[in-house]
Amino acid sequence: MTYCVGVLVNQGLVMLSDSRTSASVDNIATYRKMTVWQQPGDRMICLMSAGNLAISQAVVNLIEEWNGSDRSGGVYGVTSMFRAARLVGDAIRSVYETDGKALELRDQPFNASFLLGGQVNGGQTRLFQIYSEGNFIEASDETPFLQIGEHKYGKPILDRAITVETPLIDAMKLALVSMDSTLRSNLSVGFPLDLMVYEDGMLAPKIWRHIREDDPYYSNIREQWSLALRRAYTEIPDPDWLSEPTATVHALGTPEPGA
Amino acid sequence: MTYCVGVLVNQGLVMLSDSRTSASVDNIATYRKMTVWQQPGDRMICLMSAGNLAISQAVVNLIEEWNGSDRSGGVYGVTSMFRAARLVGDAIRSVYETDGKALELRDQPFNASFLLGGQVNGGQTRLFQIYSEGNFIEASDETPFLQIGEHKYGKPILDRAITVETPLIDAMKLALVSMDSTLRSNLSVGFPLDLMVYEDGMLAPKIWRHIREDDPYYSNIREQWSLALRRAYTEIPDPDWLSEPTATVHALGTPEPGA
Repeated sequence: MTYCVGVLVNQGLVMLSDSRTSASVDNIATYRKMTVWQQPGDRMICLMSAGNLAISQAVVNLIEEWNGSDRSGGVYGVTSMFRAARLVGDAIRSVYETDGKALELRDQPFNASFLLGGQVNGGQTRLFQIYSEGNFIEASDETPFLQIGEHKYGKPILDRAITVETPLIDAMKLALVSMDSTLRSNLSVGFPLDLMVYEDGMLAPKIWRHIREDDPYYSNIREQWSLALRRAYTEIPDPDWLSEPTATVHALGTPEPGA
Repeated sequence: MTYCVGVLVNQGLVMLSDSRTSASVDNIATYRKMTVWQQPGDRMICLMSAGNLAISQAVVNLIEEWNGSDRSGGVYGVTSMFRAARLVGDAIRSVYETDGKALELRDQPFNASFLLGGQVNGGQTRLFQIYSEGNFIEASDETPFLQIGEHKYGKPILDRAITVETPLIDAMKLALVSMDSTLRSNLSVGFPLDLMVYEDGMLAPKIWRHIREDDPYYSNIREQWSLALRRAYTEIPDPDWLSEPTATVHALGTPEPGA
């Protein structure tokens, strides 16, 4: 499994991925799931993938082919992030044409999804989720974050805290907290992490970092967050329910708890 | 879908269930998923269910039959919580014998799971998770909480905060926070909630409450928790990564982010 999250706020973009790949619980490996293509001053495009590793690697390889050895085509040639998302979709469909039938014959799903974020000079910073069919959706003011892979553990904190107004560095902290919740609760997501923080208009990464488990700042976030959570629930006052009488006997279909 | 959580701490037991049943997103209803059987001073047994509603209702009905109109048999007759869990397992297997074949013929899984917690006079307070096959596992000092249904959203806070040493009322607050995270992030889990808090040795519920969305204490928990989470991440200091140089160009297979 995998967990990747992209957060798009007014100030910019945060992309964060884990690196665990598991064919099964006894077949675990580490692969980076983030690829950054950049031409400083012209474009910064970041792709993250979840699902079948063979598919996502083929997609990235194909895009690299299209980029060309002189980096003039492919994602370096597109005129907008919309066109970049289309290009990734084209690559997915091309891989499906090559590999899809053989997978289906073995009852293997063609399972891959992607988050693509970044900015092309002259356009806006945008974030897309691209499906295995090659079509895609875009993050918006109402839905400023997108997740792929093992997304449920890390969703509640984002649901509560992320808006487009969230400062970029806070969005980065929240993405790291969301990842930490996932890492703690699910063995199929693992270190190291790849983090890319992009400030709108910068056309180059602001922070681009490979984070290992012993990273001091990450450890600090992890500890502070645990501490804050424990403090938070102990500060919630007790209910006055304790002094109320409770119901006596429950009959099926007519439960009578103290309401 | 459903979310039910049981927490077993040294001081006692917390059982919490939602009440949303969905055949699909446009076919949603409210059903209680918690049943409490008690003989004050002798036993307090609480069952929660997730999965196919027809199966779980049949299981509860069958147990009620076994209890007898004079409440001397069934869960009122067992000599321990282990025997109570066996009895629920027997009821599940009996329903499988009746309904299993017809479900399988229509490719419908025999999908149901249960949490059973409580105490029988002379024994300990115990918590079990019972599978659709009728067998079961038990909560332990290392794993003091069990969940059924839509469990992922509400797991991180329990993973971080619950131990057997957690005071009973704090365990209740954490269960409510875990439920709130699930309610916020997943439409298939919904109000009202059923809460049962049991203090070890009491042989009757300490708190047994039907919680609607406008419940003042629940609203208070919800607000305080959101506030605490937002405060928590803003208190995390910024990293010193900002001042470090980032890598320039990414070549496939040899990513070079600032490490």
